[in-house]
This record gives sequence, C-alpha cells and structure tokens, in this order.
Amino acid sequence: MIKHSIYRFGGGATDAADAGVAGDKTLLGGKGANLAGMAAIDLPVPPGITIGTDMCAIYIAADRSFTDDFLAALTDGIGHIETATGKSFGDPSNPLLVSVRSGARVSMPGMMDTVLNLGLNDATVEGLAAASGDARFAWDSYRRFVQMYADVVLGLDHGLFEEALEIAKEDRGFADDTQMGADHWRALVGEYKAIVAAELGRDFPQDVNEQLTRAIGAVFDSWQSERARVYRRINAIPHDWGTAVNVQAMVFGNMGDTSATGVAFTRNPSTGEKAWYGEWLVNAQGEDVVAGIRTPQYLTLAARDEAGARLPSMEEAMPEVFGELGRVFDTLETHYRDMQDIEFTVERGQLWMLQTRAGKRTAPAALKIAVDMAHEGLISEEEAVARVEAQALDQLLHPSLDPAAVRDVVARGLPASPGAASGIAVFDADTAERRAGAGDRVILIRTETSPEDIHGMHAAAGILTARGGMTSHAAVVARGMGRPCVSGAGTLSIDAKAGSLKVAGRAFAEGDMLTIDGSTGEVMAGEVATVQPELSGDFGVLMGWADKVRRLGVRANAETPADCRVAREFGAEGIGLCRTEHMFFDAARIAAVREMILADDEAGRRVALAKLLPEQRADFAGIFTEMAGLPVTIRLLDPPLHEFLPHADKDFDEVAAASGVSVEKLRARAAELHEFNPMLGHRGCRLGVTYPEIYEMQARAIFEAAIDVAEGKFAADSSARHVASESPNPSHPAQAEPVEAPARAALRQAQGERGGEGIVAPIPEIMIPLVGTARELELMKTVVDDTARAVFAERGREIAYLVGTMIELPRACLMADEIAASAQFFSFGTNDLTQTTLGVSRDDAGRFLGQYVDKGIYATDPFVSIDVAGVGQLIELAAQRGRGARDGLKLGICGEHGGDPASIDFCESVGLDYVSASPYRVPIARLAAAQAALAARNRSGDGKGDK
Amino acid sequence: MIKHSIYRFGGGATDAADAGVAGDKTLLGGKGANLAGMAAIDLPVPPGITIGTDMCAIYIAADRSFTDDFLAALTDGIGHIETATGKSFGDPSNPLLVSVRSGARVSMPGMMDTVLNLGLNDATVEGLAAASGDARFAWDSYRRFVQMYADVVLGLDHGLFEEALEIAKEDRGFADDTQMGADHWRALVGEYKAIVAAELGRDFPQDVNEQLTRAIGAVFDSWQSERARVYRRINAIPHDWGTAVNVQAMVFGNMGDTSATGVAFTRNPSTGEKAWYGEWLVNAQGEDVVAGIRTPQYLTLAARDEAGARLPSMEEAMPEVFGELGRVFDTLETHYRDMQDIEFTVERGQLWMLQTRAGKRTAPAALKIAVDMAHEGLISEEEAVARVEAQALDQLLHPSLDPAAVRDVVARGLPASPGAASGIAVFDADTAERRAGAGDRVILIRTETSPEDIHGMHAAAGILTARGGMTSHAAVVARGMGRPCVSGAGTLSIDAKAGSLKVAGRAFAEGDMLTIDGSTGEVMAGEVATVQPELSGDFGVLMGWADKVRRLGVRANAETPADCRVAREFGAEGIGLCRTEHMFFDAARIAAVREMILADDEAGRRVALAKLLPEQRADFAGIFTEMAGLPVTIRLLDPPLHEFLPHADKDFDEVAAASGVSVEKLRARAAELHEFNPMLGHRGCRLGVTYPEIYEMQARAIFEAAIDVAEGKFAADSSARHVASESPNPSHPAQAEPVEAPARAALRQAQGERGGEGIVAPIPEIMIPLVGTARELELMKTVVDDTARAVFAERGREIAYLVGTMIELPRACLMADEIAASAQFFSFGTNDLTQTTLGVSRDDAGRFLGQYVDKGIYATDPFVSIDVAGVGQLIELAAQRGRGARDGLKLGICGEHGGDPASIDFCESVGLDYVSASPYRVPIARLAAAQAALAARNRSGDGKGDK
Repeated sequence: MIKHSIYRFGGGATDAADAGVAGDKTLLGGKGANLAGMAAIDLPVPPGITIGTDMCAIYIAADRSFTDDFLAALTDGIGHIETATGKSFGDPSNPLLVSVRSGARVSMPGMMDTVLNLGLNDATVEGLAAASGDARFAWDSYRRFVQMYADVVLGLDHGLFEEALEIAKEDRGFADDTQMGADHWRALVGEYKAIVAAELGRDFPQDVNEQLTRAIGAVFDSWQSERARVYRRINAIPHDWGTAVNVQAMVFGNMGDTSATGVAFTRNPSTGEKAWYGEWLVNAQGEDVVAGIRTPQYLTLAARDEAGARLPSMEEAMPEVFGELGRVFDTLETHYRDMQDIEFTVERGQLWMLQTRAGKRTAPAALKIAVDMAHEGLISEEEAVARVEAQALDQLLHPSLDPAAVRDVVARGLPASPGAASGIAVFDADTAERRAGAGDRVILIRTETSPEDIHGMHAAAGILTARGGMTSHAAVVARGMGRPCVSGAGTLSIDAKAGSLKVAGRAFAEGDMLTIDGSTGEVMAGEVATVQPELSGDFGVLMGWADKVRRLGVRANAETPADCRVAREFGAEGIGLCRTEHMFFDAARIAAVREMILADDEAGRRVALAKLLPEQRADFAGIFTEMAGLPVTIRLLDPPLHEFLPHADKDFDEVAAASGVSVEKLRARAAELHEFNPMLGHRGCRLGVTYPEIYEMQARAIFEAAIDVAEGKFAADSSARHVASESPNPSHPAQAEPVEAPARAALRQAQGERGGEGIVAPIPEIMIPLVGTARELELMKTVVDDTARAVFAERGREIAYLVGTMIELPRACLMADEIAASAQFFSFGTNDLTQTTLGVSRDDAGRFLGQYVDKGIYATDPFVSIDVAGVGQLIELAAQRGRGARDGLKLGICGEHGGDPASIDFCESVGLDYVSASPYRVPIARLAAAQAALAARNRSGDGKGDK
Repeated sequence: MIKHSIYRFGGGATDAADAGVAGDKTLLGGKGANLAGMAAIDLPVPPGITIGTDMCAIYIAADRSFTDDFLAALTDGIGHIETATGKSFGDPSNPLLVSVRSGARVSMPGMMDTVLNLGLNDATVEGLAAASGDARFAWDSYRRFVQMYADVVLGLDHGLFEEALEIAKEDRGFADDTQMGADHWRALVGEYKAIVAAELGRDFPQDVNEQLTRAIGAVFDSWQSERARVYRRINAIPHDWGTAVNVQAMVFGNMGDTSATGVAFTRNPSTGEKAWYGEWLVNAQGEDVVAGIRTPQYLTLAARDEAGARLPSMEEAMPEVFGELGRVFDTLETHYRDMQDIEFTVERGQLWMLQTRAGKRTAPAALKIAVDMAHEGLISEEEAVARVEAQALDQLLHPSLDPAAVRDVVARGLPASPGAASGIAVFDADTAERRAGAGDRVILIRTETSPEDIHGMHAAAGILTARGGMTSHAAVVARGMGRPCVSGAGTLSIDAKAGSLKVAGRAFAEGDMLTIDGSTGEVMAGEVATVQPELSGDFGVLMGWADKVRRLGVRANAETPADCRVAREFGAEGIGLCRTEHMFFDAARIAAVREMILADDEAGRRVALAKLLPEQRADFAGIFTEMAGLPVTIRLLDPPLHEFLPHADKDFDEVAAASGVSVEKLRARAAELHEFNPMLGHRGCRLGVTYPEIYEMQARAIFEAAIDVAEGKFAADSSARHVASESPNPSHPAQAEPVEAPARAALRQAQGERGGEGIVAPIPEIMIPLVGTARELELMKTVVDDTARAVFAERGREIAYLVGTMIELPRACLMADEIAASAQFFSFGTNDLTQTTLGVSRDDAGRFLGQYVDKGIYATDPFVSIDVAGVGQLIELAAQRGRGARDGLKLGICGEHGGDPASIDFCESVGLDYVSASPYRVPIARLAAAQAALAARNRSGDGKGDK
C-alpha cells in the first residue's frame, strides 16, 4: 500500500498482504482481491494497482474530486506498473497502456464501466506501433480507446462512433472490420477526435494523466448510475459499499496468431461436471469473445468433438499454453477451493491471467460441485453445506418445463409458486374438484382465490389468477400445497360464470389445455412437456451433511395426510402448523359449519358441532397416522366465522335452500358478522372465548383420534406402536394438575424427536391462536384440559399432549412471561405478527410494497423475509421473557418465514428450537438451518477462518 | 389485636392503633377502620371486634373452615365486648347480642350480608325480655334474628318466613306488625323454628358460638356470591381483596320513644350545601329507615319546614341528643376532613355511632364541597383538586334534561356521548346540513355513520344510530365534537330512503321532533326541556388550583375554528391533533378530492390538488387565528383514498355524473382501491410516499396560511401580533439545515406555551401519520421542508414550525431511536397503537369486547383506558428510546385516551409533555393531569401522608 488506499500487485508487490488485507473483498473489491491473490501465488498477472472501495465514498463526498495527495500517490502507483513492465506511461518511445476497471465487493456484471488501452494519444500511438511492430494494431487500439473513453468518461453517445465506422467501411466497400488497415484506422481516429471536439467543444485529452484520473472518476461515478442502483436494489446490495478501481497494465490478445483471449470455468457451471469449460479466440481482445462477432472456439478437444465444431480447440492449437492454463486452473481451485470463473489473455505466447472469481452456477451444478469437492477432499462437508444456496434448492424440488419444448406464451404473471403444470382450464373450485376426481389434470383459474377455493386448489395441478401478488391468498396457499401458481396475470379477462378466459386476443373455454410455469410466471396455450426433478444421490448426501450440522429442528406446515407424507419424505421432523379451518371448508362439512354459525344458541351450535366431530376426528387420525412418533402442532379454529358464509348473491339462495334457513336470516347473519378489518376481528382464540364449544369439539376430535391411532385403529404404518400403553392408568379427575405427567412425557418424546426411533404414538401439540393476554390462554387451556380429562376417562387411556400458543400479536410478545405460565410451547406466527407490528395488511400491501422496497423503506418484502429490526426485536424479547418464566419453553416459528433462509438464520440467532415450512420447502429449511448453525459458530468465534 | 387478625375497638381498646394499622382500610375494611377511628377519638361506638380482610382468603383457602386457634381468639374477642358492655354472650340472665357485618375496602352497598341480634336463643330471649323490661321487643328481636339468620346463614328462602308472618297477622285480623304483641311474636318464633327444622332436617342452632362462627363464615361466603362478583367486575374491584367482618354489640333504637335510629350526611350530598342532611325514626331499627314502611322524619327543623312535613324533626323531638349529634358531626368532619355519611342509633337517650364513611355525592356537590372545604381551611387546595373525580366533570359540561320534565321514552341505546338535545328528525347528512343551515335544530338519525356523514354530524344538535357501540364511528366523532349521541339503539327500524323511523310501534318522519339523552341513552318523542350547564365560580376556582398543580400540558383535538374556540375556552393550551381528512369530506371539496383520486397520473392529481389548496389554506388560517400564539399539531392526510369514493349504488351514478367520469371508470377505481383490512392498508404516510404531491399541497396550505395569519390577514383576534417579524430574513435555500433555526424558535415558543403571554403567531407542528420506519419520516420530512423553503422564499418570510410523527404502530415504538433522528416531536396515536398491539379492530371489537371485560381478559375496554401492561410498555419504550436519541424530544398523546383520567395518570408516569383530548374533555384532562401530578408526587415519597 502506497497510501490513500492504493494497493500494488504483480511484479513482486504484495501491498494487500503487507497491509493485512489480502483477500479482503470489502476493501479491494472482488476483482482486486483476486488479482492480488493470483499474483501472490505467482500466477502470471499483469502488474497493477487497486484503489480501495473506501476511496469511492471519499471521492463522492468530495463532490467528485481527488486531492492532490491522492493524485501524487496515484503517480507512485503508476510508477510501480512502469517498473514492472519496463514501459513508461505517456512515453512515446515505449508507452505503458493500462486498463481501468471497476471491482465491487460482489460481481455486478455489466453494471459498471471499464476503459481499456488508456495511455494512448497522438504521440504514444506511434510508439505502440513501433514497439509492437504492428501499426494496424496500434491505430485499432487507439480508435477503440477513443470510442470507449468518449462513451464512458465523456458521456458521448457511442452510436456516433459506430456510425462513423460504418460510413468509413461503406466508403471503402468493406464488409468487415478486418479489412480495415492501419491508415483506415488512423483516418477514423481523426474522425473520432473531430466528433469529440464538435460535441464537447474541446479536444480529446492528450494528457495521459488527465485520461487516467478522469477514467478513475468515471468508474466511481458509474457506482452511482441509475442502472447500478436498480441492480443493487434488486439484489439487495447496500448502496454504501462503493466500488474499487483496478488500474492494470494492458496485455493484448490481438497481436497475431500467437495471441489469444478466452474465458473459462474450472468445472461445468451448468451441470457441475468436473471438466474444463470455456471459449477462446485467436488474435482477439476479450470484448470480441463477449461481443459474438466471431464464433468462439472450444477450449478442450473433448468439448470440440462433442459439439462437432469446425475450428480447433485451444488444446490442439496452443498445446503448450493450454497445458500451462490447465496447471493454473488446478492451482486456482486448490487455492480458492471453489470452482473458478477465469479470464485470460495470451500475448505472443505468454499467458496472462486477467481475472478469477468463484463461478456462478446453476442449482444442480452447485449441488454437484459442492458434493464432489467434499469427496475430493478439497473442502470439508461443512463447507459443502455452506456452498449451496438454500433458496436455490427450490429449483430441484419441482417439475420444470422441458427446455427443448416449444412454448406458446399467451400471458405473464408473477412466479408465485414454483414448478410447472399442464391441465385443462376450469373456472371454479367445485368443477376443479369434480374433474380432478374424474381423473383430469386441471388448472384452476380464478380472478383471485379465497378460502372457499381451497378444495379446488388442492385438487388442481396448478393455479392461475388474474389478481394478487406474491403473497396473495393464491400464492401463499399454493406454495403451502406445493402447487405451481402464477398469480396476478393482469391481462387475463376471466368470466367465471361463462367458464371462459380471454387473453392476447384468444379465448379459452373450460376443458382447453393450458400450461403454467410457476417459476417464471409464464402462461402457455396447450400442453408443454415437463421434466420431473431428480433428487439425485448428491441431494441426499448434502442433506445428510446438513442434518449433521444443524441445531434447529425442521417441521412442516401441513393439514392433509398427503401433505404430511410429502413433508415426511422431505425430512420434516413433525408438523409445526396444522391449520384446522381448511377442513371446515370441505364441501361435505361446510353445511354443518354453517348450521353452527346460524344456530341461535349454544345448544344449537353443539348439535351442529356434533356432526363435525367424527369428520374432524378422521382428519386428525389420518394426519397422526402419517406422522406416527412425531409431534403435530394443531392450531384450533382461527378465521372469522363470516369466511364460512357465502359472499356472492347466487350463493346465498343456494346455501339457504341447502341449509333450510331463509335467505333473509342468512343475509342478516352475514351482515351481522361482516367486519371492517377481519384481520383484527372476531377470530383466533376470540372465537374460543365466545364459543368455547367449538374448541371443545376440536380438542375432543384430537384426543379421540390420537387414542384411536395409539390403539392401532388406523395403523396403516406397520411401525406404529402403542406408546399410550406406557401410561395405562385412567386419569384422575380430582388431582390438581392431571395433565402435567403426560405433558412431561410429551416433552421427553418431543425432545427426543430427532432420531427418536421406537417412539411412534402421535404427540398432539394443541395451539391456541391469536392470544394477547395470559388470561385468554388460561381459559382456553382449561377447555382443552377438561376435554382431555373427559376423553381419557371415557377411553381409560391417557395420551401425552401439550398446550401452547401462537405468538402473533405484539402484545403477546410483550406479555410473554405471563403467557408462558400456561403455555408449554410458543410458535411464532410471523405472518400476523408482521402484519400487526408493521400495521400492514398482507392482502392490501401490494399497492405500496413495491415502492417501499424501491425507496429503501423496507430492505426486502417483510412477508418474505423477517423484518429483523422490528418484528425480530419482538420475537427475541418474547423468547427471552418466555424462557425466563418457564425453563425449556419450546419455541418454534410457523409463519411463511419458516422456509426463508434469511429468516431461518435469524431463528438460529435467537435460539428457537425449530422452524416449520411448507412441505416443499423442508429441504431448503434443513439446508438453511445447517448454514445458520455454521454462521452462528463463525459469529461466536468458533471455527473462524475456517473458510 | 388479639391474634388471627382480630382487632378490638370501643371500651378503651385500641388494637388497630397498637398494631400500627389505624385507618388501614385494606386490612380492616372501610367500616372497621372507621369504627376503630371513631372509638379512638372518643365518639360513642358500641364495642366490638374487626376480623381483618386477610382472614377472608384464609377461610376460603381452608375450604371455608376456621382453625381452633382462630375460634379461641374469637372467644377472646367476644370477651372484650362482654367486659365493655357488662353483658355475657349466651348468658340467659344478661345476654350480649351482637351484629355481624361485612366491611370491604370499598363500599359495596347491598352486596354482602349482615346478621343482627345474634346471640338470641330460647333461653337468652327471656333474659333480654327481663333486662329490657319489654317482652314484645325481645320476641320481636328473636323472630327478626331467626328470619335473618335462616336467610343469610342457612340459605333458606325468606319468602317462607314472610308468608308465615302474613298468615299470623291475617289469622288475628291484624293489618300491621305493630299490632303484634309479645305472645304473638313468641308463637311466630315457634313457627319459624318449625320451618327451619322442616326445611333443613335439623333444629335452629341454639348454641350462640355456633351462631357466631357460622354467621362470620356466611359473611365471608357472601364475598364470593355471584352478585358480589358481578358488582366487583362492573366496578373494577379486584376479587382478591376480600372483606373484613365486624362483630359489634347490638344497640337498639326500638326500645321506646327515647330510642331512635337515623342516617345523615354532614353536608347535602346532592348540592354540596353546608347543612346537616338526614332522616331518623323514633322507636325503630336501622332497617326500618331503609325499608320505607314508616315515613322517616327530617333531622333539622329547617329541612322539616322547607318540606312542610307533619312529623317533628329530631332537632325538636330530641334537642339534647340532636345537640350531641351535631358535635359528633363537627368532630367527624374535622377528623376525616371530608363530608361524612353516618348511621346512628339512640338507645334510651344514649347516642351510639354505628358507622361513618366518606359520603357519596353528585358531581356538583363534589365540586362545591371540595372548594368550600378548602376555603374553610379544612383541606388544602391540592386536596380539593384530588377530591373531585375528573371523569365526573363530564356531567357539568353538557346540557342535561330538566329533571322535572315529562319524558316519552320510545327507545334506549348506549350513552355514547354525554349531553341532551332536542331537534327535528333527519335521516341523511346533507339534509342535516341544509336544515341546520336554515335554522332548524336537527337530530341526525343513521343506521350507522361513516366519514361521509361528518358534515351532517357537525351540523346536528345530536346523533342517533341504530348500530355501533361506545367506540363506534358515531360515538367517537360525536364525543370529539361534543355532540350528544345515543348509539346502538337496536330497536330502531330506520328507512333512510323513505326518511322514516319506526320504533315501539310508532312512526316518525323527517321533521318530527325527538329528544336524545346521550348521558343515559334514552330516546324520547317530542321536545324535552333541557338545563344548560352552569360552570359556576367553584368550577373556575378548582380548575385554577388544578392548573397550579399539573405538569402535563393539555391540548385539544379539533379541526374547525368553532371547535378550537370551545377548546380554548375550556383551557386548551394548543391543538394536539388537527385531522385534515374531515376537511376533504366537505361537500364543496369532495369533487376535487375525487378528481384527484381518479386522475391517471401525477399531473392530473396536481391539477385537482391545486383546486384544494386555497380551501385547505383557508381551513388552516381559520384555525391558526383561533389558536394564535399556541402550537397546532396538524396531521397530514391519513385515511385510505377509497373512503372518499361513494359506496352505495345510487351514489356511483350521481358522482359519475357530477365528475364527468364514466360510472365504469369510477367503479373500477373503487374496486381497485378496495381493501380487505383498511386499517392496515394504503393510508397514513404510505399515501404520502406514493403520492408526495398530496402532502406537498397540504404543507403549502399550512405555511401559506401561517404566514397569512402572521401578517395579520386573518387577525380577527385583536391580541394577534406578528411573531414572524422576529425572523425577517428570507430563507437560504442553499444552507445545509435551513429549517433548524425556525425549529428551535418553535421549540422555545412551544416550551413557553404555558403562560406564554405575548407570543401570538401560529406554530404549526406538522405530523406525519402511521410511520413505521425512520426512512418514511425522512422522505416525508424532506417534502415538508422543501415546501417550507419554497413558500418562505416566495413570501420573503419565515415561520417557525416543527415536523414530527404520530407513533401509532408497534414497530414505530421499537424503532423510536432511529425515528427520533428526524422527528422533532412524537405524538402517540393510541387508538391505532392499541388496535395493532392488541390485534383488535375498534370497529369490529363489539362482538367480543363485552365478554372480554366480563371474563377478566381485559381489565377495562382498552379503547377507553390505555392497556398499560401491553400498549403502555411500548409507549414507555418509545419515550425512552426517542429521548435517548434526541434530547428534549417533545412527547404527547392524541388518541381518545388523552381525555381518560387513568390514561392521563399513565402519561404522567412516563413523563409525556402533554395530553390532547376532545374539546369538551379538556377540563377533565386538566383536573386529571393535576391529580396525576399529585399521585406521582405521592409515589415518589414527596408529600406522603399529606392526605
């Protein structure tokens, strides 16, 4: 380091290492850190300097200017390059040319600016011609420089220069740049300079130091450009990171047939296969490879053969340099311990490394490379676990469209739930259920969905809506069910009554085949072939390693036996949220539910509830059977009752006829139950407090089903054993705390749930929703415990169970100590906790959420990733106060956030016991939990420097 | 104290004083403490013992039983009474009779049980006859005892005994109890005992000790009775306080014409007049006064004369005892320093005091007594301030119905906003405004009200709704405006289209006269005379004393010049919440508002906003003129935009026609803006973030109006002076923080607002609503500051102003430190903060709130009195974090709670700077703030024992 954050590399300089910042991408940027890193392990790197990211902010703060001190230090830096190359900056006799490139902490491809061939002017161009013995090359380089500098630094429209080039070629009847000779380029440089003078009213700068400082400034400026800001916003990169600038001696791949340039990956970034992968061009500059004017050649003979390409591979054309490149690849992988993305240039037979960085890769490649490298001993299993982005696993877990298939895209919506599906169009839930029952694959198409559509969504292969965002009802439910979903496809004009859909000037009727891709948001006419996910051996291997590392348990949110089975196959260790309201929407039951709602008194409600009891019991028995031996958290009824009443006019008549109640009474009751803000209304435990008989019925269904399963009545699973026989005594209604003993047993079981072989009875964890005061939970716990006692006495058998609460209101967090007195577990319902803490309705946030993220008000959508600063404070407080009041209080999270890696990292940091995610996100959660455990270990100092 | 919490009094015993618990109502109960107190100052009190409240819980916990130790101590206690009276318990020759009475910490009239004449049995009744020389008296006492004991202790139906008495009289042809002689009573006692034996299968207890212990147990049991529990719930008395029991020697007012009994107040409890006030009866027991069988006589000659009563006053009939009683009254008032409610008995010329306690009084009486006593030097001014219940002032501030007028009550609703009003029935807001404009007094009758009715509510003399609770829109707005309101009168059948109302079989049409009493909830046909409140001299005197004591500032929530004037007359020191949306509903402006909402782009919105600008400016100018010299907190637009669009079908056509937009477009926009949970939707600063031009227009209107007023353009108030001339420099748009200087000036002014004579320019405090992140406030503050700079430059004049935020979301409380960085003040919006923290929609809570209070889930309605445990935590946290980040951050509260005494006490305890209440509650807030300051002083030890 000279000073002013200028770090020299190459030519024996080791400034970054000397200053103790070797590999520090925060300061040096990714490119600078890797250039210094390559130089440090004696790879051939053109000498240069890196100006640290800290200078970016200083430059911007100083009204985009440099101090004289900085400029002096910069001159010293250029001196280093001059010494290492033996050339001299601005010296017409032996001119040094440099590149000036950005280099941020993370790669922002194409976002920021670069200037090449800097140092050329009317004098040095002649020196370059002489030194290279190639006047055409020199003048070509000069015209490239003028054009690039004019664009990047001077802000002129590059079209002006392209047009001049076109005219120059036309005038001479040339079809191709290669036909341009030295004199032609010289003439064009004259025209280019005239353009600059005409546009700016001053000449193109001939002072190479002015060229340099203005280019450096332009790179810093490009950090602030609109497109860079947008990119950072989209990719959640903080605006205050800034970029570094690398000034490096130019090397030329376009100095004849012994020169070349190329890009390569040390492994296949698409499949992960361990084979060099890349392209190169003889006698070309790097931009030519990217520009696609010439067809790049394959790097290896094998790749050329496989593609049947005409041009020779580098392996054949330059065997010696290729051999050297191969050794460099090996050195780099060994050094960086990851697949590398490389740029190189060969100048007259001499290999120069211009860049190396960890290569971007597809999800399958990431998985394969991580597992392979661990097997090769290059990285540890834990590092392999850390290498695969948890979120990316989503790609591996759903069917996808065959990339080779033709797509007739008719609309685009939001990629609301991943996976692809084809099926016939249907326009209402009942039809979806009926036709699916008849064996059709259906796509359910709705303007927007509501809880009444659940059965149809479940029956459908995919869901398509015209309205609603990424967190609309359709999106949330579809993700939970693992159904592909495209939401908010605004160009669809849906007529549900007529059973038809118009879009892009075309019409589709019920029964017409459609395909949706929930990973891209595309809606296509006809059937498109899909490819099933291959959960290959590598997947299982990585999951196994992840499970060894993670501390957090992973459960699933599921409410049908089928979903439970998927969850268990994906490795769920229990159910963290079994909603019970979806069961109430079932066509066979909604009549009884409505009868209950319309009843005039408790007696009437009890009559209706008695009809629901056997149905609910069967629901739970199915779930308990699937989840034998594992805990199942069941949330008692949560939504406001009006959700179960019809909304559309025609439905009123129908329902009235079906239920034997007058339309007037039905309407009156619906009007009575109407709420201005249902989210904050008569729901959750407020229903249980006002109608305890509902919770009583549900508790009875749970206990009866649990005992049935424990007694083997539903033991489809041959491994099912009767844990209840461990506590064969009938209950003692008179004893003070009759449920404590079974509760302790359940705790023991639950604590042993990871690898707890041989424990197979269901462990119901009954969850009271929307609790805000200790008293609510006390009252509801009494209902549950009383029911347990009654059922246990009737059946002569006890079952272990817990009673706990969903923590989803700010007040519940604040009063967690008092609430913990009667709660055996807390499950954070972060959806509602986010809604109330932020005062934002998830269903209504679409109108401003986008702008809120764009304007930096929210870092990310708070319904996707937990708002750690706000909601996180409440969760942490609740965890502390809850555990302070009750040792070992079990803590979990069951909101949508339970499947989000960033949120899982937060859950790890505050010491929750488990996360619960939708079944298809369970593997993501397992991996993210492992990564969170590793991150926590690193944070605490243990294992520091391990990576 | 003997032990087991038994405290002797009378006969020279001073157990309570000896144990250091003299006057401790918590332990001794109110009655016990006062009996011991009277005995201690040598007033004639029959000797007795008090069993402390702590024994109540012990008895209940021990499964309603007493230990032998306790019983032994009780015997010792009886021994004290025996010694003091010279009589012996259960001794047939000279029997001691006792009363057994409850005595809780606060009076619960009629809620708990009493047994008199205990100690009588078949043997002692003869002794009593001999000792008193009155066999009739003895047997009458015995029969009364048996009946009372059977009812209270044995749980028998008292109807059985009354029936037996009726039959006994009928058999003998007697019309009256007085005709019953000793033998008749003796025979009846035999029948009574037979009834007991027949009902219970065992004889009436003859063992006086059994009688005693069972009676004590029965009194403790009565604490747990259903009616007592209900009473405590209604009156917010904790269930665990328990009751004390007083066992006291009986004295008899029914031993002939030198005996008497009476009740009295030391001052008139209805008017507060300093004159003895009471009733007495010769030869009677206390229950006879209450029972109303005989007409009680007046205590004083003056009262008898005034009433023209036939029977002599006590002053005439027993001048000597009356003189003694008067001396007792004076002693008691001097000792207790408050108006006393007294029970006494004269037994054969000997005066006995049976009870004294602070007398209940009407609000006018409380005010007069407090002020009088302070003037008399009996209590200090501060004690006078503490004596008047702040809430009770409400009665003094509104017109009330003439008590003498005839009322034709047709319906009852909730007493939603106090005061009474008569007017003609109208059924929509426009008609209300039109007819009020034409000079009619109108009652606006709606099924329920919405923001579109505001102008009609404002024009009306009173508001009546068929639906909605105490916190419905109608109730909240009416209280804010000081309009009487009866809400939720469910029996009304309103046909707004037809302009008619049916109720109780009668029909009323538009123009028919109705009267409502918002203090009782009554709805009456025709006009009922009302009485205007007299804010007498005493009121002003007390307010003056309160203002000397209080620390909290008191502002008003108001948004019209008229309301501001009322607020100022009631002593408001500024406006704490001026909502701006009500101005948008004005008929003249709603068209422009809708034009803005329907505009396709920002340019279109700006055209519409330009039409609103002069109107808003005039609004603010009017308010600033009224509030000259005082701070005015203006909240920028808060409600979601759909509130300004029509809802009913017919309105769509009308509005479309008026606005020149197609009905389809209007409907589409309304559908687009529809929200599932408007409370959590696109409102507050979210509007300002997405449509900054709205806030820009409002800020411009504020600054232009403020400068207009400062320049005297609206100076109707002759005291208005130009404070703006103190800073005559035009603003400096280039300077870094151009608003800081005026902001500091405003702070200085605001800090001097109490008694800040001579400062008369308006001080706008611009409040950004619904902020949840620091960034939102930063963005909105920039809009306001930029607008300020622009207006100041245009006008060549600066005005002091502040920018702050409403803290009404849990996240805002949690992030208060960050938010305070750009907030110059916080105003706690406790309505919304309560809604979000508890997850309860105020508009929807009616369905469960009642049960929640009944079941002890909420101590009180959290929208009436701040939920200190939950919401209070967040407020305290925000206050601490906000002040931690910004010294001297101004903190206020502007929710409905700002007028609630309990909430004001909380605001004092967390150190807020001011509270803001609706204009009519400003005096209540002033008094409550003073009481809170006194309470805080007592809590901190300063001034302890001052009362």
